[in-house]
Order: sequence, then C-alpha cells, then structure tokens
Amino acid sequence: MNTISNNYSKNNINDRTKRDDIQPWALFLPEIKELICDKKFHELKKLLKGVHPIDLAEGWVNFLPKEKLIVFKLLEIRKAVEVFEELDFEEQTYILNNLEDISISEILTGMASDEKAKLFKKFPERIYKKMTTLLRKEDVDEVKNIVEYPKNTAGRLMSTDFVTLSPSLTAKHSLEKIQACARIHKIETIYVLYVVDDRNILIGGVTLRRLISAPQDIKISDIMSPVQLIKINVKTDQEDVAKKFSKYDLTAAPVVDDENHLIGIITIDDIVDVIQQEASEDIAKMGGTSASELSADSVVKVVRYRMPWLFVTFLGGLVTSWIMSGFQRTLSEIIALASFIPVVLGMGNNIGVQSAVIVVRALVIGQFEIKKVLSAIFREFKVGLLIGVVFGLFLGVVAYIKNRHGVPPEIYFAFAVGSGICASMTFAALIGMLIPVILYKFKIDPAVASGPFVATATDIVSLTSYLVISTVILL
Amino acid sequence: MNTISNNYSKNNINDRTKRDDIQPWALFLPEIKELICDKKFHELKKLLKGVHPIDLAEGWVNFLPKEKLIVFKLLEIRKAVEVFEELDFEEQTYILNNLEDISISEILTGMASDEKAKLFKKFPERIYKKMTTLLRKEDVDEVKNIVEYPKNTAGRLMSTDFVTLSPSLTAKHSLEKIQACARIHKIETIYVLYVVDDRNILIGGVTLRRLISAPQDIKISDIMSPVQLIKINVKTDQEDVAKKFSKYDLTAAPVVDDENHLIGIITIDDIVDVIQQEASEDIAKMGGTSASELSADSVVKVVRYRMPWLFVTFLGGLVTSWIMSGFQRTLSEIIALASFIPVVLGMGNNIGVQSAVIVVRALVIGQFEIKKVLSAIFREFKVGLLIGVVFGLFLGVVAYIKNRHGVPPEIYFAFAVGSGICASMTFAALIGMLIPVILYKFKIDPAVASGPFVATATDIVSLTSYLVISTVILL
Repeated sequence: MNTISNNYSKNNINDRTKRDDIQPWALFLPEIKELICDKKFHELKKLLKGVHPIDLAEGWVNFLPKEKLIVFKLLEIRKAVEVFEELDFEEQTYILNNLEDISISEILTGMASDEKAKLFKKFPERIYKKMTTLLRKEDVDEVKNIVEYPKNTAGRLMSTDFVTLSPSLTAKHSLEKIQACARIHKIETIYVLYVVDDRNILIGGVTLRRLISAPQDIKISDIMSPVQLIKINVKTDQEDVAKKFSKYDLTAAPVVDDENHLIGIITIDDIVDVIQQEASEDIAKMGGTSASELSADSVVKVVRYRMPWLFVTFLGGLVTSWIMSGFQRTLSEIIALASFIPVVLGMGNNIGVQSAVIVVRALVIGQFEIKKVLSAIFREFKVGLLIGVVFGLFLGVVAYIKNRHGVPPEIYFAFAVGSGICASMTFAALIGMLIPVILYKFKIDPAVASGPFVATATDIVSLTSYLVISTVILL
Repeated sequence: MNTISNNYSKNNINDRTKRDDIQPWALFLPEIKELICDKKFHELKKLLKGVHPIDLAEGWVNFLPKEKLIVFKLLEIRKAVEVFEELDFEEQTYILNNLEDISISEILTGMASDEKAKLFKKFPERIYKKMTTLLRKEDVDEVKNIVEYPKNTAGRLMSTDFVTLSPSLTAKHSLEKIQACARIHKIETIYVLYVVDDRNILIGGVTLRRLISAPQDIKISDIMSPVQLIKINVKTDQEDVAKKFSKYDLTAAPVVDDENHLIGIITIDDIVDVIQQEASEDIAKMGGTSASELSADSVVKVVRYRMPWLFVTFLGGLVTSWIMSGFQRTLSEIIALASFIPVVLGMGNNIGVQSAVIVVRALVIGQFEIKKVLSAIFREFKVGLLIGVVFGLFLGVVAYIKNRHGVPPEIYFAFAVGSGICASMTFAALIGMLIPVILYKFKIDPAVASGPFVATATDIVSLTSYLVISTVILL
C-alpha cells in the first residue's frame, strides 16, 4: 500500500491545519450530502476527485448506507480501492454485498496483496468461496500464500506485487521492463529492484536511482549490490523486521524463504505502522493491559484484558498485608509508624516504575547491553540511595513535627522513619531495574514486567525494608 | 540520510541473525585489529568494503584511538561520511582534530545537511568558526539556516538537498535533469520531485514513477499533482509531522515557509526515528521520568529527571497518610481493616494506571475523540464496577477467613471490606481515565499524567472510598 499521496487536495488546507480539532472529512461531508440530495452526481464526481481517500474513509461512518453506495460507485477505480482498503471489515462487507460482481472483481483485483489477504482471512467459508470465484487464479494463490503465514511475521507484512530483474538485462532494458510493469500492474515500489536468477533465487538488488544514472548498456550484474545483510526471512517477527529497517535506514527489503527464493518485498510504510503498533503494545503492557483494549468494543473484553494483571497485584497485595500483620507488634506499639505506610508504598512504587520503564525501553530498542548489568545495578543503587537520602530527610522532618509528643523520643522516631524510607526507596529502585532484566534473560517480554510485577514487587520490598529498619532502630 | 543500504554485506549473515546476541561488529572486529597489527593495509581496505557503515560505527568504541584513525582514513569517502554521521559527538571531534584540513572539508561537505547542522550546533564558537572556513559558502548558509529552527520542528528534520522541477519542463528533460543532479550532488531522494515556479513557490509534485511511465514529451504541468494536503510548514512540531506521514502513508513531504516557498523536504526515514523517539518519550513520561535518562551519563542527572515526579508522589503520599489519620477511630477499633490497606492501594493504583495508559495512547495517536468523553466515562465506570465486584468477592472471602474470631461479626466485616474495595476500584478506574483527558483539555501533554499523577490521585481516591464505605457499614 505504498501510495505517495500527493495527488489529492482540498483548497484551504492552511485553515485546516490551524484548526486542528476539525477533521478534514468534516469540511466536505455536508457538501457531499447536499449534492446527493440534489442528485447532482456529475458535480459530486468532480468534488470527490479532490478528496483524499483516507479522509473519505475517515468520514465514512457519517454517511447513510444509501449514500455510501452512491459515493463509492462514483469514485474512480484506483481511488475506490484505496478507500475500500481503509474501511472497517463491516463497511467492506456492506459494500461487497451491494456491488455487482464485475465491480467486486475490479476492487478485489486492485487491492494490494497484503490488504487482500487481511480481508479474505476474515470472510466466513461461504463468502470466501464466492469471492475467490471473482478473482483470477494467480490472485487467489497469492492470497492463500499470505494467509498461511503466522500473524506478526514478515510473511504477513510483505507484498507480492513487485518487478524482478535478471542479471543479464542491460540498464536500458531493465528500465523499459519497469516502465511497462508500472503502467500495467500495481507494484509495491519501483524504487528498489531485486535481481533473481532463473530459479528465482535472490542474488542482488539495485536502486532505481543507480539504474537511471548508470550507462544505458551496462548489465545489471555489473551494477547490482549484494543484499545479504538486509534480506529478511519470511518467518521473522515483525518487531525484528522493524528493528532492521530502523537500524540500517532501509526503505525496502526483500523477503526470502529458507531456500533463498525471493517471495515478497516489505516497504517502509508498512514498518511505520508496525512501529506505532509495537509502541502501543509496549505501553499497554507496561500498564498491565493490552493495546487491543483500544479497539475492544465490549466491556467484558476490556475486563478480560485487565484481569490477569490485577490478579497479580491482588496476590501481591495480600502478601504485603501479611507482612504488615507480621509487624503487628511494632505497629501497635508505635501507631505513628503505620500512618506513613501510604507514603512508603507510593514512593517505592514510583521509583521502581521509573527504573523499570527506562530499562524496558532500552531493552526493547536494543540500547541496553545485558553484559553491563553489573554496572547498571551499581548505578541504580547510587540513584536510589541518593534519592532515598533526600526523601529520608524530608520524611524525617515531617515525622519529627507530626510526632512532637509521641511515644519514642521525637528525634529517634524521625531518624527511624527517614532511614526506613531511604532503605525502602533504594531497594525499590534496584528491584524495578532487575525484574525486567531477569525476565529478558528468561526470554519473557520485559514490557509485561514494568507495570503490575514491578508495582507488586516494590510494594513488598519497600514495605519490608521500611518496617525492618524502623523496628530495629526503635525497639 | 536516506541511503538504501543494500550495498554492503558479509558472508554468513544467516549464522549471524540466528545468534542474535552477537552484534554484527563483533564478527569483523578481531580481523580488523589483526590486519592493523600486521600492517596489512591493502587487505584491510578490501575487508572494510564489505562492512556496513552502521555496523562499523556500532563497534567503533572497541578500537584504540590510533586504530580509529587508520580505519577511518582507509574508508572510501562516501562510506567515511556515513560512518562519521553515525558516531557520537566525542568520536566525531576526535576524528576532526586528527584529520588534515582537506579531508575534513571532504567529510563535512559530504554530510547530509540535517546531520551537518546537528554537528555544527554542538561545536564551541572557536571550532565552529574554524570549521566554517573549510566549507563552501552555500554549505555554511545551509547549516546556519537549519540551526536557526527550534528543536523538534520540521525545520530541523528537513534536508535541503533536493532537485526541483519547473512546470514548463518536459518529462524527458526532467529525467535528464534528475540524472545529472543525482550523479553530481548528494540528494535526499529522487523518488518524489517537487515543482516550483520562478519565485520558488511550491506549486506541485510528481513521483519519479509517474515521470518514468509518462509520455516523454508531456509537460510537467500536465502530470504534476497539487501538494496542498501534504505540505508541511517549517515550524510544525515533529510529532505532528510524524502523524501526517503515518496517516497519509507518505514517503516524502515538502517543507515550506509562511510564504509557501519550498525550503526543504522530509523523507520517511527521518520520521521512523521521530516515531521511535516520541514513543520512548511517552513511555518515560508515563513512568515519571524522561527518555533522556536512557543516555544520561551521570547519576546526578538521572536523579534530576526523576525528582519532580517523586515529589508529586511524596506530597500525594502525605495527603493519603493524613486521610488515614482522619480515620484513626475506625482503624483503631477495627485493626483488621488496616491490614488490607496495601491491597486497596495496590489495586486502585493498578486499575487506574490501566485506564490511564490506554486513554493516553489513544489521545497521542489521535484515536480518542474528546467529544466522546461522556460515553467513555460511562464505559470506564462499568469496567471498574465489574472488576470491583469480582475483587470485592475475592477480598470478602479472604476477610471472612482472616477475621473468623474478630470483633465485628465476620459476615459484616467481609461485606464491608468487599464493598470497600469494589467502590475503591471503580473510582480509581474513573480517575485514571479522567486525569489524562482533563490535562489534554488544558493542552498539557497527557503522557506526563499517567504515572505519578494518576498513582497519587488513585491512592487518595481509593483509600478514601475504602475507608468511608467500610466505616459506614461497620460503625
């Protein structure tokens, strides 16, 4: 779906970007509705030419069912395909159910192979069969192939619409081939071209830029570059694909099977979506839920995403309560000690989560080297201790004032509370950093760690440190 | 810096990707060191041809200072520039200080304009002046221009190395102009070309694809498309630029000043970095720290990033403690009630953060419409209540067992604790969702909210609800 979208426009875009709470579709929607109402279809067709397909898809739900069909049928075929690709599955099925077979076939054939596969995957068996009768055999095979790859792998991201070159072609003939293909077929990109031998084994790549500026009678084999480093196995996880794109500043990469046959290409615009998606997923995991919650439609589904993490917290909370009961003697003798427990829990939690999110992000984007754990521990210890001392002093002062007429001499009490929170924060910072690292070592996604697990662990560690230290000092 | 990096390779890359804990640079590093030791510079030069500049830059710190200079001088100029662009500022200055003026001038001239600006910005006045004497006047002006734009704006992202077309050119002549430019100058991309009139006002755009497949004598004005929708003002924030790229699936966009003069282009590879960077920043903010912590070198700096958020938590914790003191009568009469406070705080916190991260992410990527707040509140209320009921039952059972011989009749106590945590979680879920929305309304970045603010607010809300409800039931 690599459409360089500079061929659509509306007039006063400057107004639009300034009032950023107004969505682009809101500006042309009333006009479209009016033209439909007045049956001015010729004018409507002209207006639609100036609307970006993505804006149209965004405003789609605001049309009446009948209006949707009228608008869709008035779009030129390439644009209709783009709008169709952007719509929800429900909207897509509504259109397919109300279009003649010949138009359906046009739309389906026009879709990018990855989008087509996504759509077909969702069809119930009966519809799937009906739709495949409307496609050419090669398109059906293409769809079947892509659908077979597991979710979130290179196989699902790749497009199978590309031109290949053979090493014996000249630059001139290659350009002619590319021109001819670009005119007739939809092609994901013509800016990077891959070279295969007669068994379709990937042997090299050449950029269109190189091809254009090379002498016209030179052979491809003389200007192509090896693509060893940047080829991607079809089973590679999409997160690793994204890492490779961003590390090597790629704009496209070839996808091969285990025998090194070229079977697809991935372009950078697909990667942008992956990065957004993975970042959302990481953020959600760190909060103890799933990014799917963003699009979940039922309350029960949301509850199901959140429940497991809340259960972790629940068990952790019970452990914390149980520890507190263990110190009942201390707490009942010096009731004032108990009143600072919310501060201790909150501070331990916060400093632990701070350490965790930083380590998790560094692990995820590959900036944290696992070899350097020891120096990271030492550094985190220093950070925790320094911050602990500062807040130890703060809380000590508060405790001194609050306990002016308390049971233990106020200065002892202040000292006990201060040292307690200092120890508690130091250990919480350490544990917040260590949990993601340990999970990573055991090949568990560290992002799931930083929310509930860290919160629970820091509660336990910080409360215990606080109570032990203050008990030792006071009793 | 849009280099399609398929021209570098090493032999057994398959081995490499499988052992993913081994960094690519680790594989050639010993060999390079050995060749330097044996003074086999000719062989070293050949070996370096096969190493990707980004891998080389990654392994750079493992060379001795003397080795660095030898390796750098043996690189061909284009690759030397790429390696140089990837290095840290300290490494860059080391190289510049030890290179002859003529080579420095080659390196600086070869750099992409945005990278050059980044480097010059960091030079102290004296070095800046010296370095500018080694550049051509137009390059100096370019750097000065870019450095003037505020951080994190389109002006800083854009490159000023591009070809423009005029509307009266034919497709054939345009292609010839592009070929000539691509051979002589470094150009950010030749795949999207922008059309300007004789006052350099942006009037359209055309893709290389279109240009190639068009009849060769057609005029640019007949095949160009308007670029209203996708042009970017030079002062636009980089986050908004990234949103536009990802919404409209762009691969490049023109940057204009207020008078619509074309002054630069932004390509998608720069946007990939922005998206990564913004995601890191959001994640760090949600944890109550800054993404700069990732690269902070001193413990004091880390402490400074974390301190403000911890202070928020500290004050919040004191408020929570103060509320607890307010319920001293309840708590001293029914000591068992106090022992569940860690559970209540932990659960409130967790469900609040869950709501917050989801809403924050939806706000940041533009999926949450502020109009729908009321329905979101109602939905979150249902989620919170449903989860609250479940954990109310759990905690009720625990309370019943734990308090078998307690002061209030066990069934009352269980009921009070259960209803307490149910109310506490419902309100915590609501407040976790509302705080980011309110901040967003007041144009404060919602990402800063979801960590410390939400944690503090949920502590206060959940503890109060728990104590009020259970007090009402029991006393």
